[in-house]
Amino acid sequence: MILTVTLNAALDVTYRVEALVRHATHRVAEVQERAGGKGLNVARVLHGLGEPVRATGLLGGDTGARVQRLLIADGIASDFHSVADETRRTVAVVDSDATGFWEPGPVVTPEEWNAFQARYASLVREAAVVVLSGSLPRGLPVDAYATLITAARDAGARTVLDTSGDPLRAALSADPDIIKPNLSELRTLLFVLDAEDGADDADERWPTSEANIAGGAGAVRVLGPGAVVVSRGPDGLLAATPEGLWRARPPETLTGNPTGAGDASVAALARGLRDRAAWPDVLADAVALSAAAVAAPVAGTVDPETATRFRTTINVTRMTAEGDTRPGPPLASSAESAAPTTADVKESPAC
Amino acid sequence: MILTVTLNAALDVTYRVEALVRHATHRVAEVQERAGGKGLNVARVLHGLGEPVRATGLLGGDTGARVQRLLIADGIASDFHSVADETRRTVAVVDSDATGFWEPGPVVTPEEWNAFQARYASLVREAAVVVLSGSLPRGLPVDAYATLITAARDAGARTVLDTSGDPLRAALSADPDIIKPNLSELRTLLFVLDAEDGADDADERWPTSEANIAGGAGAVRVLGPGAVVVSRGPDGLLAATPEGLWRARPPETLTGNPTGAGDASVAALARGLRDRAAWPDVLADAVALSAAAVAAPVAGTVDPETATRFRTTINVTRMTAEGDTRPGPPLASSAESAAPTTADVKESPAC
Repeated sequence: MILTVTLNAALDVTYRVEALVRHATHRVAEVQERAGGKGLNVARVLHGLGEPVRATGLLGGDTGARVQRLLIADGIASDFHSVADETRRTVAVVDSDATGFWEPGPVVTPEEWNAFQARYASLVREAAVVVLSGSLPRGLPVDAYATLITAARDAGARTVLDTSGDPLRAALSADPDIIKPNLSELRTLLFVLDAEDGADDADERWPTSEANIAGGAGAVRVLGPGAVVVSRGPDGLLAATPEGLWRARPPETLTGNPTGAGDASVAALARGLRDRAAWPDVLADAVALSAAAVAAPVAGTVDPETATRFRTTINVTRMTAEGDTRPGPPLASSAESAAPTTADVKESPAC
Repeated sequence: MILTVTLNAALDVTYRVEALVRHATHRVAEVQERAGGKGLNVARVLHGLGEPVRATGLLGGDTGARVQRLLIADGIASDFHSVADETRRTVAVVDSDATGFWEPGPVVTPEEWNAFQARYASLVREAAVVVLSGSLPRGLPVDAYATLITAARDAGARTVLDTSGDPLRAALSADPDIIKPNLSELRTLLFVLDAEDGADDADERWPTSEANIAGGAGAVRVLGPGAVVVSRGPDGLLAATPEGLWRARPPETLTGNPTGAGDASVAALARGLRDRAAWPDVLADAVALSAAAVAAPVAGTVDPETATRFRTTINVTRMTAEGDTRPGPPLASSAESAAPTTADVKESPAC
């Protein structure tokens, strides 16, 4: 079973309007609601693929009750801990594009956090892999993910972490098996690690060339994570792993809604980790699910057949020949499934 | 006791943002929630003034549960009927002004409507005045307010109706004691009554001169309502009553938030009806509460002391000397409290 953890869950509300006009009143013809937060998006993708999954985290108040009810309607097994404060809403007003309003979410008390950890400790005993996603609600210590990763390892579960900023930085030394920063999150991490630099001239000082991404992923990996899988939007993934550096690209640039594409790739990383699959297979699966999410008519959903069709078209390349011997996720050798390799890291003109 | 009826109640959500930017994501620092819908606004004003009030209507789903909880927190006595579908939210994003998103609200089944009417029949037996406010949710017959007004009269209660469009038109012949259209609602009513006219050239064909408003209010009154009190925004009220035509004006134009000002004036009309107060007093109270709502720091709230201070400054003028003999709200004679009168209707240069 894969356990997803969503500490700052949300009720995602979408309003479709003809055109958003500032300072006007809009009668919304159609309201869509979804149980949201990155961890729940991962759970939804896994459930849609038929993978056994359970969702945990924190829910509070009437909005939390609504999220719980939507999860039940979706058939997603869940075991959330209740908090007193209200779960947040995110409101997306969609005309030709989305305008978003994100509530701040609950303030969690130390007692609630302790009670959640006790519940989590019993849940991870049944989990092969734990996926920890998204921001931390107010009130939690910045090393909350570090604590949960350590507890998962103690219970024999592997971990995928998809968060950003300080909670990500504070979790690196807990040695999560995989982290999945996007380019902006990786850059923030590198700039914070190199504390003398400001972020104002980030684009100039750290252009997102493939060489920089590869170097950055490798640098972060030294700090603890078994693998650093960097999501590059339409350019696919670049992964620093115990078996070397990998690049996985979709065959073409897809048009569609990128919302939830990152969560779909995390779902693939989680089931690859559970199955101890070879890195090229895991990365091809991650790019395929991500592409299927972009192509889906409903944001963040994945049609399994579309994903299967995409999977055969993903180009996975080993960028370095040598692996290393640091302990990482115990994945199978990838030699038999590796696509054409290149021996050196080149800058991609697309970056 | 005054009973307020809110058939299409709402959870009013306010997001304060620095500046609404289309197609951007806004992190909302502050979320305000309020039990909303015009009837609940009336109940809140009456409760704030210390008047015995009970709120009824329809609430559904998790959003309905949230509204119920907010009413309890506000100390407003309520007796709502549950429906299966979700109560609507209204989201107001406020920067220098408000941008609104109004959900459509629940679809009410015939069984739910019948069950509500049974509950309402027992509630009106304890009510001196029933206030019926706002739009009808989908699924209700257009003459829903007519039915409720008749049931109230059968139980010995008087009625104030504040709605618009077809539900207002369909309720006129049920003879509500007072209706309170604003200028736009009055115009719509007159144009629908005169069915050969289109509404495209409304401003040209029916400018909102005082003579037109007075004539229109009188014409509508002939169709059933005991009194037609037209709210004119900063210009105050114009009322066609069984005791003649009245104009009530605030002494100066107030700056502030006009949201809820109409509901505050309805609260005054309801308690005036309950107390069988003289029309000049009722109208002065209505303009004073409305002005206090505009001046209030929180939209739609009324500070009793501010209202008392404003009340002495309201200019109430009898526009016609003669009353008529049609049965209307049994109010006391207004001769002793009437302000200076004018014998004819003049166009106001402010209109």
